[in-house]
Amino acid sequence: MIDSNTMLANLSVVLKRPKYAENIGAAARMCFNMGISGLILVREEKPNHEDMAKMATHKAVHLIDNMERYDRLEDALAPFSIVVGTTARLGRKRTVERPPRDIIEDILPLLAHNKIAFLFGPEDRGLTNDDLKYCQYTSCIPTAAFASLNLAQAVAIHCYELYYAIVEQSREEPAEPEYASTFQLEGMYRHVQEALLKIDFLDEKSQHYWMRNIRQFLGRVRLSSKEANIIRGICRQFLWYQTTKKIKSTREFDPP
Amino acid sequence: MIDSNTMLANLSVVLKRPKYAENIGAAARMCFNMGISGLILVREEKPNHEDMAKMATHKAVHLIDNMERYDRLEDALAPFSIVVGTTARLGRKRTVERPPRDIIEDILPLLAHNKIAFLFGPEDRGLTNDDLKYCQYTSCIPTAAFASLNLAQAVAIHCYELYYAIVEQSREEPAEPEYASTFQLEGMYRHVQEALLKIDFLDEKSQHYWMRNIRQFLGRVRLSSKEANIIRGICRQFLWYQTTKKIKSTREFDPP
Repeated sequence: MIDSNTMLANLSVVLKRPKYAENIGAAARMCFNMGISGLILVREEKPNHEDMAKMATHKAVHLIDNMERYDRLEDALAPFSIVVGTTARLGRKRTVERPPRDIIEDILPLLAHNKIAFLFGPEDRGLTNDDLKYCQYTSCIPTAAFASLNLAQAVAIHCYELYYAIVEQSREEPAEPEYASTFQLEGMYRHVQEALLKIDFLDEKSQHYWMRNIRQFLGRVRLSSKEANIIRGICRQFLWYQTTKKIKSTREFDPP
Repeated sequence: MIDSNTMLANLSVVLKRPKYAENIGAAARMCFNMGISGLILVREEKPNHEDMAKMATHKAVHLIDNMERYDRLEDALAPFSIVVGTTARLGRKRTVERPPRDIIEDILPLLAHNKIAFLFGPEDRGLTNDDLKYCQYTSCIPTAAFASLNLAQAVAIHCYELYYAIVEQSREEPAEPEYASTFQLEGMYRHVQEALLKIDFLDEKSQHYWMRNIRQFLGRVRLSSKEANIIRGICRQFLWYQTTKKIKSTREFDPP
């Protein structure tokens, strides 16, 4: 298995002529959060550093400082074997649009040995047909009707989806708690039954019916060993309390 | 199947004491983008409407205007059967943290008949242990080391994951293009072969070897009927051009 860092190093976010420097900063922060360090700008003018840095925060400002800048999109995309264009849903069917998750599933195996770019258009107009001709994939985030994600949100979701797919494939199953064994559970149920009989919640006749219900409910919880012990502890304490209280209260009414 | 709108209507985003009104606005915009209309605030002071509205944009300002506000978290959470707390990864293992996608998979079937809340803590400190006691689930967005998502980004990703899961379960498979049939493909390959023989790219001896390679490459593309026709069109045109050019050029060199 290829390690996650190699895969993340092969992915870059390319921003084509973003209008607002703040959005470049916000994109940098999200890239950083998701382990992506390649941020590339296509824009004739240098954006205001302070506005970018404010949104990037000190944690991601190095992405801004190391950012490559090009005048022409074609030059920015030159090193990439695969380019994923991103679009808002606009009704006009220019190309086959798929959700980022689907596309990432396709490109993930390629990321070990290929440089891949996520390409985002300007805030107001998005990518043109001419931009999309460089793209092997067109990604569209599903949204509710009339919705529009802003640039930073679109970058955020693409970076998150990529990072998630990468960690997911190398994720170890979370350590399952040690579930209570039948032996432990039966000991617990005997304790519960004893306590419920004591307080007359159960009687000899109905006890099997109610215990079956309680077993159903507790069975659904899938108790861990520790939790089964907690329940036993409560029953034990309760029974002890009942006994000593009874003795005490009996004594109270005892003649001195 | 329960319709998506019912499910979305049963989900609310609860923000506990967010410091910045802008973040409330950004959360509103993302809720709107993902079809969620329930936005609830836990905060003694009313936040500045203008600061919220600026980030919500006119599209989502109605979510701000209809937002319920409570002083106490317990009151805000009262109507919900399931509360999903959200935390940043802090190292201290307070509870079983799972990625939002996993949790949403669990709660999705419940969303048809239960009110569910996504609960977010303040920007600086997040949810306390006391807040988390109301939560049946604790969600944590996977991020790279040292990363920290801001509140608006965390809301964005949770809303997106929920919306995606809902549309995903009702998604129709995208209309697959009509792929070229064997009949169409064989017609195309004959045309290609003829053209390549013409330009002496292929000769009698090597033609099967090279055509096998071309077939492998074109086979991997999975051509649609339309694309196969385009390739045939090019070959046909090329052959026609060759013929007429030859005639012309032959004529040119013909004695007048």
